[in-house]
Amino acid sequence: MHARAYATYAKDKPLEPFIVERRAVGSRDVALDILFSGICHSDIHQARSEWGPARYPMVPGHEIVGRVTQVGAQVTRLKVGDVVGVGCMVDSCRTCRSCTGGDEQFCEQSPAWTYNSTEMDRVTPTFGGYATHVVVTEHFVVKVPDGLELSTVAPLLCAGITTYTPLKEWGCTKGTRVGVVGLGGLGHMAVKLAAAMGAEVTVLSTSAKKEADARRLGAANFALSTDRGAMKKLSRGLDLIIDAVSATHDLPGLLGLLRPRGGLVMVGAPPDALYVPAFALIGGNKRLAGSSIGNMRDTQEVLDFCGKHGMGADVEVIDAVDINRAYERMLNNDVRYRFVIDAKSF
Amino acid sequence: MHARAYATYAKDKPLEPFIVERRAVGSRDVALDILFSGICHSDIHQARSEWGPARYPMVPGHEIVGRVTQVGAQVTRLKVGDVVGVGCMVDSCRTCRSCTGGDEQFCEQSPAWTYNSTEMDRVTPTFGGYATHVVVTEHFVVKVPDGLELSTVAPLLCAGITTYTPLKEWGCTKGTRVGVVGLGGLGHMAVKLAAAMGAEVTVLSTSAKKEADARRLGAANFALSTDRGAMKKLSRGLDLIIDAVSATHDLPGLLGLLRPRGGLVMVGAPPDALYVPAFALIGGNKRLAGSSIGNMRDTQEVLDFCGKHGMGADVEVIDAVDINRAYERMLNNDVRYRFVIDAKSF
Repeated sequence: MHARAYATYAKDKPLEPFIVERRAVGSRDVALDILFSGICHSDIHQARSEWGPARYPMVPGHEIVGRVTQVGAQVTRLKVGDVVGVGCMVDSCRTCRSCTGGDEQFCEQSPAWTYNSTEMDRVTPTFGGYATHVVVTEHFVVKVPDGLELSTVAPLLCAGITTYTPLKEWGCTKGTRVGVVGLGGLGHMAVKLAAAMGAEVTVLSTSAKKEADARRLGAANFALSTDRGAMKKLSRGLDLIIDAVSATHDLPGLLGLLRPRGGLVMVGAPPDALYVPAFALIGGNKRLAGSSIGNMRDTQEVLDFCGKHGMGADVEVIDAVDINRAYERMLNNDVRYRFVIDAKSF
Repeated sequence: MHARAYATYAKDKPLEPFIVERRAVGSRDVALDILFSGICHSDIHQARSEWGPARYPMVPGHEIVGRVTQVGAQVTRLKVGDVVGVGCMVDSCRTCRSCTGGDEQFCEQSPAWTYNSTEMDRVTPTFGGYATHVVVTEHFVVKVPDGLELSTVAPLLCAGITTYTPLKEWGCTKGTRVGVVGLGGLGHMAVKLAAAMGAEVTVLSTSAKKEADARRLGAANFALSTDRGAMKKLSRGLDLIIDAVSATHDLPGLLGLLRPRGGLVMVGAPPDALYVPAFALIGGNKRLAGSSIGNMRDTQEVLDFCGKHGMGADVEVIDAVDINRAYERMLNNDVRYRFVIDAKSF
């Protein structure tokens, strides 16, 4: 099946129209017409070959919402007409300890990523969601609950699951004092999800202009991270910090805001090595962790959670011709909070 | 009450005989004749003013085993003749969230440390366990179970609780794959405790000569951390690493040995900032944590646990006149695995 798509051919080239040949629908496959495709910051990193050598031509996109048009004979969970989502993975070995334990994202053979990767045969390239159609094996397709504006659902497939996972793993619940650092695509979802879980959310930002948005998204508190007095008042005041900043920043200062045994979870990836004196962790038994995407069970869970709370991402819908401009705006932090491509425009 | 002790007067001076005046026994106090006093590496750091400005004269020692000689009128848990232990703390505010939650070591006002500190009045200096007697408020005195060789019990009050706490907090149990890095005073206790909890212990060391001891202490496996092949084979093979190395070392390499969601807990404190690329934590949702000493409940628990398992530290008992020499030997890693001073020799 031909799909109209957008691709880039080299790290310094813009994205342009491209035709992807999708595979025939196998017995366990699901074909979908893509409706919306979110733009993740990692699309830019990969399109520009900043995360190791990239595979070109590359069709980015791993925040996919679509409607099922065809299912294979052995597909049981989905049917034609269902609205579904596809995230960062399209397959994994399904037999290793991680896969059988339900953590496909930690597959010991490495999952087949949705793009800039290969299928598990390690030969066939994968092409992502900046396209009109895609074919994916059923296990990696989740159901979208009714009642949500579908453009706002697309970012849940990456930004949503990436922030939901650490909130869940670290026990966020009613009354948990959660700090969110960095109010971008990931950060704004962390605020919404934590607030919906009943947490008392504090947004930490270097920009006072973010306060109004932070509160609108559900934050109870806002602190300027450059304001020493405000930071001092927050000392030992947080149970958990979701750190979505991908630039080098003051980790020891943030660790000081945690109560004893509290955890700071990085979901953004600063390019430089982290600077952390050992005593910043040893005093108060602090925990510094990373977290990336999430497994398929939790991906379904975050969609259902958002359905229950009538909540999607804050998005700006664009046409495919505007992808390159959107990349530039994202690099200037000029997006509130996620660009989503209307797939009709491919 | 006069106590014979050993003290140092300056960061570059040896320890020498000293007389400490212990306070009169108050209504909640317990007086003890000290029997054994362990030497912790932190004694050297503090005696030499390496952890911030030290208070002189300083009587080090926070691994104290003694026999109760007098109790105050309101003391209920202990009686004259009991064999007891005193660790790193001798008081705390008892009213803050941490103290009332049973985590005296995280007292928001900072605990009164056993030496190189002050009582909670923030005026009266505290003097430690290199002495014949000490007076401590009951809450900070634990009972020593019957049947243990008392010289081997002293190190449990710091090295024991410091390694027991992260093993307990991180869920060490039968079958947990625990790595222990650095086979010194802390590391050897980590091996003994984890093995007694039923864990499958792997000792990681830069020295092949440690293998026999590692296995004798309870390790099932031994890996030379300089052997790339051995390290590669261990990849994703550990659930938890207790890292007792206080020199700068390869943390990213160790994080690579953890299964997804595994944790590395530092109980040693490298002086330099840690070098950790964010991806070493984000890939596989790894956790890097610190841990220091432990609360009074757990201190009692580790003593009871060791009593049940008939297990103390591996010690070399010395006389007070040999303290300075012992410090030099410790700095040369020439101790298996803890020096303990026979208090009769003060």
